[in-house]
Amino acid sequence: MSAHPALIFANDAFYRAFADRDIVAMAEVWAETDPVSCLHPGWAPLIGRDVVLASFKAILEGPAPPQIAPEAAEAAVHGDIGIVICYEAIAGDYLVATNVFRREGARWRLVHHQAGPVNDPPPEPDEPASPVN
Amino acid sequence: MSAHPALIFANDAFYRAFADRDIVAMAEVWAETDPVSCLHPGWAPLIGRDVVLASFKAILEGPAPPQIAPEAAEAAVHGDIGIVICYEAIAGDYLVATNVFRREGARWRLVHHQAGPVNDPPPEPDEPASPVN
Repeated sequence: MSAHPALIFANDAFYRAFADRDIVAMAEVWAETDPVSCLHPGWAPLIGRDVVLASFKAILEGPAPPQIAPEAAEAAVHGDIGIVICYEAIAGDYLVATNVFRREGARWRLVHHQAGPVNDPPPEPDEPASPVN
Repeated sequence: MSAHPALIFANDAFYRAFADRDIVAMAEVWAETDPVSCLHPGWAPLIGRDVVLASFKAILEGPAPPQIAPEAAEAAVHGDIGIVICYEAIAGDYLVATNVFRREGARWRLVHHQAGPVNDPPPEPDEPASPVN
């Protein structure tokens, strides 16, 4: 469950659109032909492309759009659907997210996103399991 | 995005296995050939069928397995993948969940689950939008 570079690239593009506050890029990220949905942390479910994109517009153009960066992404492919699980580093804290992508031709486009709290930060990939000394 | 009875049935089966504390039924719910993953509320991501099922065994056989019932489920189909979003009623409170199913022959089996907090309960389906007087 990993080593799916095109899927990780699509996942990164989602967070890059967020970081750039780029609603046009965000609209590109989301699928156009498949139904889409989004569960922002704490929010009621949003269903439908227009509703989902309006929520991102409101967040990105709001007074304090959060800075979010993906970490420790893991991808799995199920035919024409790809699921990426990642941590979201946000203002010194972490969330965990599910991002579900649909293959549209040569690229993956987002059809569903959920993010929610996680108790601990991601494991340090370069750290030994136990301290040396 | 709804009216997919087989998918809603599979979603109900997941929560029924939970309510019945039935780890055998829970193992039936989860896909056997596709990679599976699970984001329990607050937990680090669990990846792999054995790890995921071990977590459910620990929860279901623990001292206080939560009573969880799905509400307001909405389903969308993307080829051989189905996504169900629902509220989870749990001890008078609510979570929202993403359940991703893979079609295996005639039935849908779970490949990914995430649940997290939600600020408000689901809307009452039978309640008028504004009070009648």
